[in-house]
Amino acid sequence: MDSYLNQFREYLTRFVEIDDGEWDNFTSMLRIKKVKKKEIILRKDEFCNELYFLAEGLLRIYFLDEFGEEKTFHFAPENSLATDYESFLKKTPSKFSIQAIEDTILIVISSEMLHYGFENLKNGEKLGRILAQEYFFLLGCKIHMMYTKSPYQRYSELITMYPWVSQRIPQHFIASYLNISSVHLSRLKRRVVF
Amino acid sequence: MDSYLNQFREYLTRFVEIDDGEWDNFTSMLRIKKVKKKEIILRKDEFCNELYFLAEGLLRIYFLDEFGEEKTFHFAPENSLATDYESFLKKTPSKFSIQAIEDTILIVISSEMLHYGFENLKNGEKLGRILAQEYFFLLGCKIHMMYTKSPYQRYSELITMYPWVSQRIPQHFIASYLNISSVHLSRLKRRVVF
Repeated sequence: MDSYLNQFREYLTRFVEIDDGEWDNFTSMLRIKKVKKKEIILRKDEFCNELYFLAEGLLRIYFLDEFGEEKTFHFAPENSLATDYESFLKKTPSKFSIQAIEDTILIVISSEMLHYGFENLKNGEKLGRILAQEYFFLLGCKIHMMYTKSPYQRYSELITMYPWVSQRIPQHFIASYLNISSVHLSRLKRRVVF
Repeated sequence: MDSYLNQFREYLTRFVEIDDGEWDNFTSMLRIKKVKKKEIILRKDEFCNELYFLAEGLLRIYFLDEFGEEKTFHFAPENSLATDYESFLKKTPSKFSIQAIEDTILIVISSEMLHYGFENLKNGEKLGRILAQEYFFLLGCKIHMMYTKSPYQRYSELITMYPWVSQRIPQHFIASYLNISSVHLSRLKRRVVF
């Protein structure tokens, strides 16, 4: 567990300093959750009670449209956070579902712990602000791409940003992410120069 | 100016307490900007140096796609904030443009002032966190609608949330927001029961 906690601390200290005493206190409340490939860890309309830091593995975040079709909108790799943050903070039904694409190791943070962190870590509120900003920028970037880029451009940017995409993510999830058919994706892949 | 400042304080104190002394100090750095209907206050690729609180009026936030076509993605009414927050905080070129749809009165906050507020207001970081969260939820809601709702559902929800939309926003901007033609929008409007 210690190496995962150190990994989490490294992630957080990119944004703010956390001293040893407060870290030891905070981590005494953390726990590890191991999930198997294909396992669904949050379903739409459930209440999301956990915020995850991905120590290892890969998650897929997806909506269900009015016809029950899955629409993948984000892939969360190791060293990132995943949750339905609105459901988690406001205690409302979640808007999306989360599934493991690989065997995944998560550090679990409850709502109580997060609020404890905001209030008791020296830079807790600042950390919360910076993380909310970072994920706000991530959503802004996704919206920008959806409005202004073709599927071809979005695919090129996806594999430039995450070169591991085609090795780790099944074709049909990538197609769902780009909102195109798998056949269309195969045609796009032939156009992209690696 | 005082009534606009009080309006801004009321907006902020929905989220955290701000006492009189710190408010007086903070507001001494604020200024008012009046913009005319149709004026563009931020253009894509410019550096966004100002965060706005809308005291009166209405702004339209839009992207330009690869063909130079405008894609409206948000309308910001009175008592809300508007900026390209990523450009503003990271000093990068802005991804979108902002135009006034009505004569508009803005309270202007510079990047230095915002950071002064984070560091010096008693609840500055907390306020920054909560506001970043609120706007993160707003983007999440937009993405959810884009992935899962038809233009008809999105139009119905738009006029339910903002009943003033059809009075204050020209038809072609609403159509651009829904990513449909003005003719398609006219057909939808006949289906919606007011």
